[in-house]
Amino acid sequence: MHKLPDIKNDFAGWYNDVVFQAELADHGPVRGTMVIRPYGYALWSEMQSVLDKKIKDTGHHNAAFPLLIPESFLKKEAKHVEGFSPELAIVTHAGGKKLDEPLVVRPTSETVIHYMFAKWLTSWRDLPIKINQWANVVRWELRPRPFLRTTEFFWQEGHTAHATYQEADQEAQLMMSEYVDFAQNYLAIPVITGVKTESERFPGAEKTYTFEAIMPDDKGKALQMGTSHLLNQSFAQAFDMKFQDQDGAIKYPYLTSWGVTTRLIGATVMTHGDDKGLALPPKIAPIQLVMIPILKNNSNNQEVLDVVNRVAKELKQEGIRVHIDADDTKTPGAKFYKWELKGVPLRMEIGPRDIQNGVAMLTDRLGIEKAAVPLDGITVKIQEKLQSIQGELFNRAKAKLENSWFKAEKLAEFGPQMDEHGGLWQTGWCQNSACEQELRKYKAFSRCLLETNHFKQCFYCENPSKGDLLVAKAY
Amino acid sequence: MHKLPDIKNDFAGWYNDVVFQAELADHGPVRGTMVIRPYGYALWSEMQSVLDKKIKDTGHHNAAFPLLIPESFLKKEAKHVEGFSPELAIVTHAGGKKLDEPLVVRPTSETVIHYMFAKWLTSWRDLPIKINQWANVVRWELRPRPFLRTTEFFWQEGHTAHATYQEADQEAQLMMSEYVDFAQNYLAIPVITGVKTESERFPGAEKTYTFEAIMPDDKGKALQMGTSHLLNQSFAQAFDMKFQDQDGAIKYPYLTSWGVTTRLIGATVMTHGDDKGLALPPKIAPIQLVMIPILKNNSNNQEVLDVVNRVAKELKQEGIRVHIDADDTKTPGAKFYKWELKGVPLRMEIGPRDIQNGVAMLTDRLGIEKAAVPLDGITVKIQEKLQSIQGELFNRAKAKLENSWFKAEKLAEFGPQMDEHGGLWQTGWCQNSACEQELRKYKAFSRCLLETNHFKQCFYCENPSKGDLLVAKAY
Repeated sequence: MHKLPDIKNDFAGWYNDVVFQAELADHGPVRGTMVIRPYGYALWSEMQSVLDKKIKDTGHHNAAFPLLIPESFLKKEAKHVEGFSPELAIVTHAGGKKLDEPLVVRPTSETVIHYMFAKWLTSWRDLPIKINQWANVVRWELRPRPFLRTTEFFWQEGHTAHATYQEADQEAQLMMSEYVDFAQNYLAIPVITGVKTESERFPGAEKTYTFEAIMPDDKGKALQMGTSHLLNQSFAQAFDMKFQDQDGAIKYPYLTSWGVTTRLIGATVMTHGDDKGLALPPKIAPIQLVMIPILKNNSNNQEVLDVVNRVAKELKQEGIRVHIDADDTKTPGAKFYKWELKGVPLRMEIGPRDIQNGVAMLTDRLGIEKAAVPLDGITVKIQEKLQSIQGELFNRAKAKLENSWFKAEKLAEFGPQMDEHGGLWQTGWCQNSACEQELRKYKAFSRCLLETNHFKQCFYCENPSKGDLLVAKAY
Repeated sequence: MHKLPDIKNDFAGWYNDVVFQAELADHGPVRGTMVIRPYGYALWSEMQSVLDKKIKDTGHHNAAFPLLIPESFLKKEAKHVEGFSPELAIVTHAGGKKLDEPLVVRPTSETVIHYMFAKWLTSWRDLPIKINQWANVVRWELRPRPFLRTTEFFWQEGHTAHATYQEADQEAQLMMSEYVDFAQNYLAIPVITGVKTESERFPGAEKTYTFEAIMPDDKGKALQMGTSHLLNQSFAQAFDMKFQDQDGAIKYPYLTSWGVTTRLIGATVMTHGDDKGLALPPKIAPIQLVMIPILKNNSNNQEVLDVVNRVAKELKQEGIRVHIDADDTKTPGAKFYKWELKGVPLRMEIGPRDIQNGVAMLTDRLGIEKAAVPLDGITVKIQEKLQSIQGELFNRAKAKLENSWFKAEKLAEFGPQMDEHGGLWQTGWCQNSACEQELRKYKAFSRCLLETNHFKQCFYCENPSKGDLLVAKAY
């Protein structure tokens, strides 16, 4: 283990190092693949359990669809195959033979799920169908980065079918609002929502809702956190998915899909980390409180351990995720360093003198306060502290977002600055994709259409603006 | 939906039909693949949550390793590649190009996990490493059957590394005992444990512990429920996985792996099902109690629904998994049929007259009792009933196992009967694999070595027996 690269001057280096040193992940043997190590997987499991509850509470059921999809399925929706073809991993041989038809390792599951929906759907009584799957998917990445872009990643993908356009659109928006609640109130990451432009839409979507966050390198780079799609009717048509409606007519249903991925781990690392390492939001931290007994030679260490164990038991009963680090081969200083690196929100030290005084030393990861806290009633105190750390992380991230958000009229003026320093740029746009393409000259992309209409002219052609566009460099 | 095939005369047809009609699973578009539908997935989730707790309580941590493994990795352990080669699915192209080295879709993860262990392991202080992963794996199946043998299946695979042979062997046995507890006390399936013969071992294992159950077609066919392996040292050597021991010497660790799969769903279906459909053990049933309000024209239906909702709320608070079927387009009879098919352990009907009498009609899936039960104190009554159904399922399965278990001296005598009717056959064996091969003439295999020594001679060559062998036809 070595010192982390400076977070201000080498954010990319800091990110890579902190992911490996905190043992969230490691490189797999195949380029672009990743091993999620136990600490990273525990973090993902905490995220999953919150999201899974949200998905079930909104009436969806988990299921599992096959990993391998006939290549011809992807070709049934023209934009879908065009969008995903460059990223596909293809199985050509299996069971010792060349396959008659190559199989695609799923990059996403619309095609195979729609094929199954078509088998199951006959009447309006079967609608809505509301399915979710937790799965691994494979997209061949040329520039992999742990969690942000990996050849294989984990996600949930929701897939639904509805009788009307309106109902499907409401569904896509509902799941977007669940994601936003998750990002802001669990990951403590403030986000911006909007609709993707046509060129940035999911391949085969009629409308893509997105939520985006700002990552804090320099003036900021955008990160797409997740998306929710109202799909083109062409999917239902391609898989001949039809139902008899109440009026007796045979109709195609309206479909949605929506997903978030292990990328959210990367977003959490980048948003809250600092020069000491990770800083995890208490609500999703695998360990919320690490307890470090201060053990000394010639002292009553057993008494200290007994108190630590008793307090830990009380805290666990209240649902607080506690870890005791009683490793006697390491100094307290080495332990402080380790658990700060791993971003544990709260640290408690208890030594013989603390016990005499009936207190424990409580230190938060954000450096807000280090204080002796009475052991009596400490559970409530810890719950309060965890809550205030959660709030403080969000507030700090919100301030960063606000400081990264700029308004500007002309690309020629803000483009060079955006290229050099990043930042989120709100500007006017004529909704012509030729103008949107100009952003690439500054290595930037449109992030989403905003609901505001602050600017009169397009940032490039100066024709009338049809609404504000948010523009940024992105991960 | 049509009548299920007769379970006695066409067990295979019954099994297939009940899996599809109860909506546990459906066929995927690629031959041998399976879609696990929401009801089947909910059953798997209940199983997972029990197993996951057992795995964590015994000190293992979940992690995630890559799906795609370099083909060369499998070749590093000679028996491993020999065993798995015929079943592999191979990715030859990705990202629009032919790959320099083909990638294997994992049939199991020993190789990639050992590669990572080798990166992480340096000192005895790093041991034991105790990892588990919930994952999908692919093995090309020539004779697929839903849940029992599918091209892609789901499982947990535990992988551990230890300083000594003894500790690794204890680990392999410990996890076997956890599996047995799970099978018997949750799935209500009595099992037989033992060690696999050399020819039936996992490819690359030094010792394979197995637990086997008897499936009730005719006199019974064996089903391997899961295995736990102490691996050959050749795995650690192949991946150059070494550590410095306390004595300063550089050593190879001893490795284990162990897993159970979605096959356990198939085992549960076959063990307990009957001519009405599934019969699920209460401890892992997604729905433990279905409540059916009896609604009538010209009656106070709202009062009935209110009582049903109130009782359901009380039951849910006690952790009972309740579903209310208030669908007013279906008759009570159609609902009874549906929930019996789906194997829900208990059914409660409440109608206007029941409310006047302060009772509900309670019927169990096994046909033990149909009785009016006072609403007052009904939670405790239901808990008792669920417990007794769990016990009854186990006892019935145990009786079947005992009735399927035969002792016999000579293959020439029991072979034809085994071939025609199945059954578990305990016999003597010289431990020569040439004799073991003779079993195939009767389409049977050795299931495991037993600890008993009941027979003096080998079932085939009549040389002295080295211990009893259990022999059966198998799924």
